[in-house]
Amino acid sequence: MKISGLHYRTIWPTASGSVRVIDQSRLPFAFATIDLETLDDAAGAIRSMVVRGAPLIGATAAYGMALALRSDPSDASLDEAARTLKATRPTAHNLAWALARMRAALATVAPADRLEAAFGEAASICDADVEQCRAIGIHGAEIIRRSAAAAGRTLNILTHCNAGWLACVDWGTALAPIYRAHDEGIEVHVWVDETRPRNQGASLTAFELAAHGVPHTVIADNLGGHLMQRGRVDMVIVGSDRTTAAGDVCNKVGTYLKALAAHDNAVPFYAALPVSTIDWSIERGGDIPIEERSPMELTHITGRTASGNIETVRVVPESSRALNLAFDVTPAKLVTALITERGVCAATRSGLRSLYPDRGLSA
Amino acid sequence: MKISGLHYRTIWPTASGSVRVIDQSRLPFAFATIDLETLDDAAGAIRSMVVRGAPLIGATAAYGMALALRSDPSDASLDEAARTLKATRPTAHNLAWALARMRAALATVAPADRLEAAFGEAASICDADVEQCRAIGIHGAEIIRRSAAAAGRTLNILTHCNAGWLACVDWGTALAPIYRAHDEGIEVHVWVDETRPRNQGASLTAFELAAHGVPHTVIADNLGGHLMQRGRVDMVIVGSDRTTAAGDVCNKVGTYLKALAAHDNAVPFYAALPVSTIDWSIERGGDIPIEERSPMELTHITGRTASGNIETVRVVPESSRALNLAFDVTPAKLVTALITERGVCAATRSGLRSLYPDRGLSA
Repeated sequence: MKISGLHYRTIWPTASGSVRVIDQSRLPFAFATIDLETLDDAAGAIRSMVVRGAPLIGATAAYGMALALRSDPSDASLDEAARTLKATRPTAHNLAWALARMRAALATVAPADRLEAAFGEAASICDADVEQCRAIGIHGAEIIRRSAAAAGRTLNILTHCNAGWLACVDWGTALAPIYRAHDEGIEVHVWVDETRPRNQGASLTAFELAAHGVPHTVIADNLGGHLMQRGRVDMVIVGSDRTTAAGDVCNKVGTYLKALAAHDNAVPFYAALPVSTIDWSIERGGDIPIEERSPMELTHITGRTASGNIETVRVVPESSRALNLAFDVTPAKLVTALITERGVCAATRSGLRSLYPDRGLSA
Repeated sequence: MKISGLHYRTIWPTASGSVRVIDQSRLPFAFATIDLETLDDAAGAIRSMVVRGAPLIGATAAYGMALALRSDPSDASLDEAARTLKATRPTAHNLAWALARMRAALATVAPADRLEAAFGEAASICDADVEQCRAIGIHGAEIIRRSAAAAGRTLNILTHCNAGWLACVDWGTALAPIYRAHDEGIEVHVWVDETRPRNQGASLTAFELAAHGVPHTVIADNLGGHLMQRGRVDMVIVGSDRTTAAGDVCNKVGTYLKALAAHDNAVPFYAALPVSTIDWSIERGGDIPIEERSPMELTHITGRTASGNIETVRVVPESSRALNLAFDVTPAKLVTALITERGVCAATRSGLRSLYPDRGLSA
C-alpha cells in the first residue's frame, strides 16, 4: 500500500543481503525503516514488536532463518535459528508455520546452496501472503458490497487491533476487504478500536486508513458495545493470530468482548485470515497458549508532546501491579463466518474442510 | 477513607464559607485539594471532572447551589444555579436528584435564611450518602462472604471505572462491599479495569485500593472477558450513574461488555448504587441521554515522565478523528442483582419495588 504516494511492503530484502522492515514501534509519529542483518536482529524485531501481525511475524521469521544462514549454513545453524525464532511469540500460528515451511524447503539443499534457497523461499512466502491477502480482499469486499447495497448508505465497519497491511506483507487481512470496497467506490466508514494496551488501532490502523484516505473514527475499546446497541455498527471484521480446526478465533485481547456484543445485537462478526493462521492440530481455543507481555505496556504510554518530542509517561501508580495478556479466544459460535483466501466459510470444522479438503497440507 | 493515615471525605465545607474538594484530575501522582468559592467554581469542578462519580456529583451540585446563595439568595439566583449545575453532566441522575432536593428544602425558606439552610441541606445530603454507602457495604459484603466461603480461596472481583469512596463522599458504592470484606479479614483481590479513555480505574481505583491495602491488579479493559473465560473472575461489581425503574444500569462506557462476558461465563454481575441514582421516570436504558465528551480525552493521555514531570502526550495521529461517549447501558437481563442501601434485589421493576414500595419518593 502507499505512504505519501510511494508503494511499500512491510518487509523486503536489500541489495546488500540484509532485510529491511518498517519500524512499527515508531508509528504513527515517525516513519522509519530498520535493516535486519542477523538472526538476532530478526528475533529481536519480532519480540519487541518492531514488526507484528500474524502474517508479518511469519514472513520475518522466514527471513530471519535466511539471515542465520549468512554466517553458518549448517544443519545445526538451521535448528538453532528455528528454536530462537519460535520462542519469540507463543500465540501467533504463522510463526511455526513459516519456520516449518522454511525447514522443509531447505532440508534437502546442500549447505553451500542454502542461503540463496532460503532467501528465495522467504520471498515466496511473502509473495504468497500478498496474493492471499489480495484474495481475502476480493471475497470480503463482496460481503461489504452486498451489505452496503442493502443498507443504502455508508457502511460502518468496526475493527479491533491492526490487521491491515502493516500486519501482513501488503493489503492486510481484516482491512483488505475494506480497502478493496473503498477503492471500488463503496462508501465505508471504519470504527477503529484504540486497542489497549499497545494501541495498535490508534497508532497503526488509524495511520493506514488515513494514508489510504478511508474515512474512520478512533474509539475507546469500551465504546463498541454501545455503538452496536444504538445501530451504529453494520459489521465487525477482525484478523486472527491462530484459528483452530473447529473455527475458534484467537486474536488480540478484547476481540471476544466485541464478538459478544455483536452477537447480542445481531451484528455480523467476521474473522479474515490466510490459511497459514489455521492450526489444524488444535480444536479448542482454550488450548492455545496466551502470550503474557511486560506490564510496562499497560503502565506506560508513549506519545508525542505538544512540543513535538516523543515521550513515555507512566499512567498507573507504582503501588499497583498490572497484568498484560495479549490475546483472547472468540468461540466459533460467535463468529458469523471466516473470510479466507479461498472464500467465505462457516466457522466450523466442516466449513473449514469445505474450503480446505486437504486440511491445509498443501498450503 | 484514609490517605497516608488521615481520614478524608471527598468534599467538606471550610470555616471561611467555601467548599473544599480533592482534585481528582491530579490523582494518582499528586494529592491536592481545591477550594470552591462560587457557583461557577462548583459547576467547573463537575464539568472538568475535578470531582466525578455519580454520588459526588450530586453532593457537589448541592454545595454549588449553597455557594450561589452567598452572593444572591433570591429565587432567581436559585433558578439560575439549578440551571447551570444541571447542564454540567447530562447522564448522572444524582445531579438532578440533589438539585431537586435542595430546591424543595429551600423553597419555603426566606432568602435571608437560605444560605445557612442550604449549607445544612448539602451537609445532610453528604451525611446521608456516607450512611447509604456504608449500608451498601454491609449488604454487598454479605454476598462476598458467602462466595468466599464457597470458593475456599481468595475471591477475585472485577470492577470497572471508579465507584469507590472517591466517587462518593466516603466508602464508595461498588468498592464499599470490598473494603468491608477486606476489613473483616476476607481475602479478596480486585481486577481493576484501566477504564479508557479517562483511566479512572488505573488512576483512582488503583490509588484507593493501594491506600487501603487491598490486593489488586490493573488490567486493560480488553482483558476481563479472557479472565472470565479462564475462571479467574468470581464476580463483577460496578457502580451506576443512572438506574432505570426496570433495572437497566447506565454506567461508565465498557460496563456493558463486561456484563456480556460475565453472562457468557456464568459470573455473577452486580451493580451497587444508592437510591439517588434510580431514575423512577425512565423504564428503558435506551432512553437515557449519553454524554459526549471531548475527543481529547481519547487522543491525549497525561502521566508522569521518568524525570517526575506531569506531561500530556498525543497518542492518536492528527489525521484521525475520535469519538468519546462516556457511558453505556447494561440491560437488566445481564444484571444478577442490585445492591442498594436497603438490601439486595433483582434488577427488575418488582425487585426495586420490593425495596422501595414508596418508589423512592421518601428518599
